[in-house]
Amino acid sequence: MSAHPRLSLNQATIKYANLTDALQTTTAAGIASIGLWREPVADVGLDAAARMVADSGLRVSSLCRGGFFTPMHGAARDAALDDNRRAIDETAALAAAGAPGSRAVLVLVAGGLPEGSRDLIGARERVRDAVGALEADAASAGVTLAIEPLHPMYAADRAVISTLGQALDIAEQFNSTAQFNSTAQFGPTVGVVVDTFHIWWDPQVLEQIARAGRTGRIASYQVCDWITPLPADVLLGRGMMGDGHIDFASITDAVVQAGYTGDVEVEIFNEQIWDAPFDQVAARVVSSFAEHVALPVT
Amino acid sequence: MSAHPRLSLNQATIKYANLTDALQTTTAAGIASIGLWREPVADVGLDAAARMVADSGLRVSSLCRGGFFTPMHGAARDAALDDNRRAIDETAALAAAGAPGSRAVLVLVAGGLPEGSRDLIGARERVRDAVGALEADAASAGVTLAIEPLHPMYAADRAVISTLGQALDIAEQFNSTAQFNSTAQFGPTVGVVVDTFHIWWDPQVLEQIARAGRTGRIASYQVCDWITPLPADVLLGRGMMGDGHIDFASITDAVVQAGYTGDVEVEIFNEQIWDAPFDQVAARVVSSFAEHVALPVT
Repeated sequence: MSAHPRLSLNQATIKYANLTDALQTTTAAGIASIGLWREPVADVGLDAAARMVADSGLRVSSLCRGGFFTPMHGAARDAALDDNRRAIDETAALAAAGAPGSRAVLVLVAGGLPEGSRDLIGARERVRDAVGALEADAASAGVTLAIEPLHPMYAADRAVISTLGQALDIAEQFNSTAQFNSTAQFGPTVGVVVDTFHIWWDPQVLEQIARAGRTGRIASYQVCDWITPLPADVLLGRGMMGDGHIDFASITDAVVQAGYTGDVEVEIFNEQIWDAPFDQVAARVVSSFAEHVALPVT
Repeated sequence: MSAHPRLSLNQATIKYANLTDALQTTTAAGIASIGLWREPVADVGLDAAARMVADSGLRVSSLCRGGFFTPMHGAARDAALDDNRRAIDETAALAAAGAPGSRAVLVLVAGGLPEGSRDLIGARERVRDAVGALEADAASAGVTLAIEPLHPMYAADRAVISTLGQALDIAEQFNSTAQFNSTAQFGPTVGVVVDTFHIWWDPQVLEQIARAGRTGRIASYQVCDWITPLPADVLLGRGMMGDGHIDFASITDAVVQAGYTGDVEVEIFNEQIWDAPFDQVAARVVSSFAEHVALPVT
C-alpha cells in the first residue's frame, strides 16, 4: 500500500528511533513528511540534523515542542522564553532544510499548574502573555506558533489549555503574519493544533474547527485514536487509528472544509507501539491512515 | 470540629459500608445529610431502607444513580427505561423518608458509546431522548432528574455528556416542574449536577454555573479534588478536598451566587479512602470540607 501523499509520521510514534533511523524509516515506508522533536535533533546537533533532513528529501511538518509557560516568573520565566526562542530558530532551520511544502510550525504545550498553585485562570493568562512575548520573534523567523489544546485530563499537570475554543481565544488576539511554509505562503503567526486525541470528545469540536478555518488558524492536524481502558500512565493512552473510539471521518471532513491543506501527522504515544519494530509501525501507520482518517487524495 | 450544616456524605465515599453503617457513620460524625446509592439500598430492600433513613433523622440529598441510556434500542432500551423508572420511585420514597430539607434528586450518568460505535453525536441524542421519555414519570413522582456531566476522559466508556454546558443544553429543553424537596418548593424536573472533579478544568465553568442558576437547574453540588498523578484506574482518581489542584472557593462562590441552597455532597472514589475506617473518613470529610470548600454558614 502506498502512503497518502499528505501523511506525515510524527517522530514520537517511533520514539526510540534516533534521527537517522526516523528519517530512514519514514522514507522507506514511502511517507513524504516527518514531524520532528527537539530532543533527537539536539542529539545530533541542529546543523547536522538540518543536513540529514535535506538529504532525506522529506518535508518537515512541525517541530515538537515549545511551551511550558505557566510556571514562569522572573529568571525562570526569562529562561523559558529563551528556550522557546531557540525552538523558534530550530523550527525555521529544519523547515528550510525540508523539501518544498515543509512548514515552520512550532507546537506549543501550555504547561500545567505551578507546584502548589490552584490558580487555573492565572496560569492561562500567563500562557497568553508568553505567546505575546514570543510573537515578534516567531514572525521575524517565519515560524507559526501552534497552541495545542491538550485533553482536560492533563489540565493540572501538563497543559492548562484544554479546548480548541480556548486555544483560539488566545490565538485570535495575535494578528501578525509569518511566512507560512517554504513555498512562501503566509499565514497568522499564532495558530492552533487540531489533535483528534485531545478534542474528539468536545461537543463544540466541529464548530471550533470551522471557526479556526475562518481565520486560517489551523497550523497542524494530528491524528491518533482514543483507546479504552486507559493505561496506567494516561500519557500513553493513544492508539493506532481504528483501534479506538474516534470518528475520524467527521473531524477530517471539518478540517478539510476549514481549508487546511498541510500534512497530517500521526502522533501516537503508546508503549506497545514504541516497542514494535520501526518499519512495522510505519507500515501500520500507512494502512491505518488510509483506512480510517478519510483524507481525500487531491 | 462540628460539621457544616449543609454537608452531605455521599455513600460512595465509604463504599464498603452497608446502609446501616453508612447511616450510623454519618450521624456519629455530626453530618446532617447523606447521598444514597441504589445498590446498598437494594441490599436491604427499599421499604426497610426508607425506615432506616427515617429512623436516622438524616436528610437525603440525592440517589445515585440512573442513566446509562446510550446503548438503548428495542427491548434493551425499554428495560433500561424501566430500570430508571424504578430508580425514580426509589428516589421519591427515600427523600420522603428523610428529614425535612431532603431532596428527591436522581443523579443520571449518561452512558458511553455502545460497543463498536463511534457515533458520539447519535449517542448524545439518545440521552436527550431518554430524558424526554422519563420526564413525565419524574414530574409526577416529584423527582428531579439530575444530568451529571462526567469528565471528558470518560466520554468513550461511561458518559457521553462531558460539560456542564452540554448538560444544560439538554436540561433546558424540558420545562416541567417537580416538587423540588420535601418542604414543598418546586423546581424544574430536569436539572444538572455540578461536580468539581468533572468540570473544574472547563474554561466556561463559572459562566455555565451562572447559566444553570438563572433557570434554577442546579440539582446537586458535589465536591472532591483532582489529584495527580492519576491512579491506574482513572475511575478512582478522586481525592479529599485539599489533596489536589481544584480551587473550590471560586466554584463554590459561583454555585452560591447561582442560588443553590441545597446540601453539598462529598463524593470520593479512592481506594485508599475506601480502605480506611469509616469514622476516620467521615472526620476527614468534615474537616476538609470546612477548610477548603468555602461554603458560607448561613
